[in-house]
Amino acid sequence: MEKRYLREVPLKNVDIKDRFWAPRLDTLRKVTIPHLFKMLEKAGNINNFRLARDKAKEGYSGPYWMDSDLYKAIEAAAYVLAKYPDPDLEKQMDELISLIASAQMPDGYLNTYFEVVEPDKRWTNLMAAHELYCAGHLFEAAVAYYQATGKRNLLDVAIRFADHIDSIFGEAPGKRLGYPGHPEIELALVKLWKTTGEKRYLDLARFFILKRGSKFFAQEHNIPLDQYDGTNLQDNLPMKEQKEIVGHAVRAAYLMAGATDIGRETNDEELLQMVQRVWQNATEKRMFITGGIGSSSANEGFTTDYDLPNLTAYQETCASCAMVFWAQRLALLYGDAQYVDVLERALYNGALAGISLSGDRFFYVNPLESKGGYKREEWFGCACCPPNIARLIASIGNYIYAQSDEGIWVNLYVQSKANIELKSGNVQLEVIGDYPWDGHLLIFIHPSQPMEFPLNLRISGWCKEFEVRINGKLEEKPLVENGYIVLKRTWREGDKVELNLPMPVEKMVAHPNVKEDIGKIALQRGPLVYCFEAQDQTAPLGLIYLFIDGDFKARFESNLLGGIVVLDGEGMASDGVSWEKTLYQPAPSRVKKVNVRAIPYYAWCNREPREMKVWMPLYPPALWGM
Amino acid sequence: MEKRYLREVPLKNVDIKDRFWAPRLDTLRKVTIPHLFKMLEKAGNINNFRLARDKAKEGYSGPYWMDSDLYKAIEAAAYVLAKYPDPDLEKQMDELISLIASAQMPDGYLNTYFEVVEPDKRWTNLMAAHELYCAGHLFEAAVAYYQATGKRNLLDVAIRFADHIDSIFGEAPGKRLGYPGHPEIELALVKLWKTTGEKRYLDLARFFILKRGSKFFAQEHNIPLDQYDGTNLQDNLPMKEQKEIVGHAVRAAYLMAGATDIGRETNDEELLQMVQRVWQNATEKRMFITGGIGSSSANEGFTTDYDLPNLTAYQETCASCAMVFWAQRLALLYGDAQYVDVLERALYNGALAGISLSGDRFFYVNPLESKGGYKREEWFGCACCPPNIARLIASIGNYIYAQSDEGIWVNLYVQSKANIELKSGNVQLEVIGDYPWDGHLLIFIHPSQPMEFPLNLRISGWCKEFEVRINGKLEEKPLVENGYIVLKRTWREGDKVELNLPMPVEKMVAHPNVKEDIGKIALQRGPLVYCFEAQDQTAPLGLIYLFIDGDFKARFESNLLGGIVVLDGEGMASDGVSWEKTLYQPAPSRVKKVNVRAIPYYAWCNREPREMKVWMPLYPPALWGM
Repeated sequence: MEKRYLREVPLKNVDIKDRFWAPRLDTLRKVTIPHLFKMLEKAGNINNFRLARDKAKEGYSGPYWMDSDLYKAIEAAAYVLAKYPDPDLEKQMDELISLIASAQMPDGYLNTYFEVVEPDKRWTNLMAAHELYCAGHLFEAAVAYYQATGKRNLLDVAIRFADHIDSIFGEAPGKRLGYPGHPEIELALVKLWKTTGEKRYLDLARFFILKRGSKFFAQEHNIPLDQYDGTNLQDNLPMKEQKEIVGHAVRAAYLMAGATDIGRETNDEELLQMVQRVWQNATEKRMFITGGIGSSSANEGFTTDYDLPNLTAYQETCASCAMVFWAQRLALLYGDAQYVDVLERALYNGALAGISLSGDRFFYVNPLESKGGYKREEWFGCACCPPNIARLIASIGNYIYAQSDEGIWVNLYVQSKANIELKSGNVQLEVIGDYPWDGHLLIFIHPSQPMEFPLNLRISGWCKEFEVRINGKLEEKPLVENGYIVLKRTWREGDKVELNLPMPVEKMVAHPNVKEDIGKIALQRGPLVYCFEAQDQTAPLGLIYLFIDGDFKARFESNLLGGIVVLDGEGMASDGVSWEKTLYQPAPSRVKKVNVRAIPYYAWCNREPREMKVWMPLYPPALWGM
Repeated sequence: MEKRYLREVPLKNVDIKDRFWAPRLDTLRKVTIPHLFKMLEKAGNINNFRLARDKAKEGYSGPYWMDSDLYKAIEAAAYVLAKYPDPDLEKQMDELISLIASAQMPDGYLNTYFEVVEPDKRWTNLMAAHELYCAGHLFEAAVAYYQATGKRNLLDVAIRFADHIDSIFGEAPGKRLGYPGHPEIELALVKLWKTTGEKRYLDLARFFILKRGSKFFAQEHNIPLDQYDGTNLQDNLPMKEQKEIVGHAVRAAYLMAGATDIGRETNDEELLQMVQRVWQNATEKRMFITGGIGSSSANEGFTTDYDLPNLTAYQETCASCAMVFWAQRLALLYGDAQYVDVLERALYNGALAGISLSGDRFFYVNPLESKGGYKREEWFGCACCPPNIARLIASIGNYIYAQSDEGIWVNLYVQSKANIELKSGNVQLEVIGDYPWDGHLLIFIHPSQPMEFPLNLRISGWCKEFEVRINGKLEEKPLVENGYIVLKRTWREGDKVELNLPMPVEKMVAHPNVKEDIGKIALQRGPLVYCFEAQDQTAPLGLIYLFIDGDFKARFESNLLGGIVVLDGEGMASDGVSWEKTLYQPAPSRVKKVNVRAIPYYAWCNREPREMKVWMPLYPPALWGM
């Protein structure tokens, strides 16, 4: 596949002004960020650093990876600060950062668990103890805070720790083989390299990636190889021989995101071909319609092809975030819209469902069906998800546009303004529209001077036909490449592009191998997957069947769930059918038609917890009783 | 359950005049009967008797049970003679009977296989050698021929053999335990008892029934009990402890028919409760929609509940006949229409499919789906089916009416006349109608003098609503008992009853546990189950899907397959849907509508052998690819 080597437009340069994300960013700033730090204090994450600073040897609370939750929250706050200067928040972060710095050991090591609980056990349990994982999140937070504020305070902590880690792991004589049980540091080291220019970080990341699969964890824990199954740790095969997405979902996607980075930055075609194979397996056989991954709670991960249960779907919020991170890297490397399709699916559905509209309640697990009673929590004993979804939303501006030195790509049609620096000059791009509720878009181009460059407009994967006009004139046969409309011309101040991506209500069906969804449909409109929540129905949800040719009307309900487009249509309510003492009977014909309403999946469970279904059974009753 | 102790109306007293059965009886007389005896000569069944007569010790042809095929053919001929005196046919039968008599041993033993091949092995292999089974068919033929002609020639042969068997088997000192590997003699001995009044025959039948399950066959063949599974021979449990219909289908149903007789005649409530349990299991969990039984060719019999495959359905023609025999006995004992529903289903569908419209081609196995190429044969190495379906059709007159001393029951609405002798006098009943093509019926009552008696009219199980008029006057709320409309009044010459049983086209669904039929429907109209044969379709059968709400028009096609009601409607032809590299997609909307036609299942494969399906998949495409 041809590489395009696109890059993100810096967060600072993107202003979001729509009625979908802007209010969420507002809630993030005003509710979520304060909530995160309140809970991090309450749960002990912050106090663990005080204990480490004070050389305390007891009092540590929480699992191994407590540090990472604080780092992710700081990263989220950093993305907020990049757009919304806030002296109080910045002061709070600086205080936390100096606390973190004060907990760092003279040699640069930094992990409150090992400093407080097992000082002599550093690096002895890479498989489970998450030291490198926590380090990764430190690096990501440091880079974000540096880019947002220009301050090196956290970056210097990160560099010291990174240098320490680099002094311990690697191929060189005297260094140790090893890699993280939970990948994350790989992609973080690449960020750190790009920010500092220190190539050792890239090499270290490459080392962690390429060594994986050498069954280090078996050796680390003296597990006989014939009794070792590294699958859940992606340690089952040499990295470049991986064919399927396996094991723990978040680890798998973080690992592949890191591998994509290394493949791109070291031009490792063999590695990238592995990533492509695994991506295809993930997205063509192991992904929920909501873009999330992870079929089983047993391993928080993957099982077998097409095993995509609804009621017991795990689809951890972190895993949907991880799909966004991975898809973004592929989208930028190849400049191919197919990756943005998955990114968009995971972002608007699987990931966004992970946080309440109020901003302070969360899902860790995101089922596609609920029997009622399943509800959002303010925090978790393992609290990886809340700060993860927070940092994703806070950085949403990174996903709207992409650029090269020569051209501009529009990936997500979020009403916004972006300043984009091309080699030939500066371009201000303004997107106007009500996406994801509506597919009519206006794009105004304001180049610093008349400039020729290609404007690449993504044709969303869900879109079957589109129309594009330049300054009112319909483009009869626009050039389409890699899923983008390529408008290459000399752009002048005020040029206007009109793009229409019609959004019919689509009745989606799943591959017949997905046994759970046989005889069912799911509604999708634009990028949004819909669900049926009990309180919107006129009959018990469990008795409702849809018609394959049923007509659904999309209408914006400004007072419902923060303002959403609902899909109103007709279904039927079975009054059940008895098979008692019956082997054959006429297909029940008493069909009671009822009004049904679907809401976006992301918005479910923001009222009283009730029954919910994404995949709805279809009338005919041939399927009843299944 | 309350017993009514009904009995059949003698065959002689019933004249069939309709356009469904009358032509078949005609074909039976003119084609099938001559064909049977021609083939019995060709295959050696008849010659085996010559060999036995001549004390030959070699030359026997065919399997153990060759004799029974001839006996069944003679039984069929006897039923024909009962209604249609035919000197030539009767002469042919008398000659065959004297041949049979000449083959009987002085002690009454009669079995050409053992006489010719293993003279010293009599009664040594009850499990497999079918001696008692052949004897049973001899008895049934003898009783039929005696009732048809008044001649004792075959009856005396039967009595001598029965006495011989009775001298060998039984509880009495010096007698042997044992029972037939293939049941049949039990119900035959009951007939012989009723005809001769010799109670020993009833006792012997009772002995065979009640002893079953004592694992005699293990002992007979020195099989260690821990290695013996008598299931296929219904020898797995003591008779009265049977709970499910198991093993070889024909054996099981013959056994249960015999058990029903014994339960009735010896008033054995415990035995009848077992029969009821097994009947429920058979009809509620192990019967094809065509009324046939036997899911697997491996044992010509039953497997597990709800295992009812279509393509590999065994549904031996003999097994559908056996269901008719068993259901008739329950219908008469209890006077309950539910048993006639099953009888009618098996008769008009599973059984009738076993013989070609031409009368000289047969199915042994009756699948509910064919990929094409499966065809009818003129005969079989194991030729049990052709004479069995022949004797059933020849005796169809026995199933139309039932009677007690006080009342009359109409079970099958075949246009016919019947003379029925009640205690209070003689009644001639005349049924006019075009059943099974139409549900409008006229019944004229001609009593010898004004007589009060209940006329019980069966409400077919497939019928949801009915109307009945007496002499033009609508009965507002007629008494309904056991599925019969009970019209009790003083009947006078020429009284006219109008019965309307509407026959909409029903889209039948199977219990969801029948995995083979999930998402499929089968068409049924009146008692007839329909099927789709490739030559009647406008698209390849394999690509056709039906609509649950599709409308089917019933129309009589006088020139098609001897005159049938076809069901013409609309379906859709899939042009397939690709799942290549796709996990989710909008439900395909390109629906190519096509005309489809269904014909009665019994009439399939009377043209060039092509693909056929009873159960048709339903659109929506959610099921495509399954």
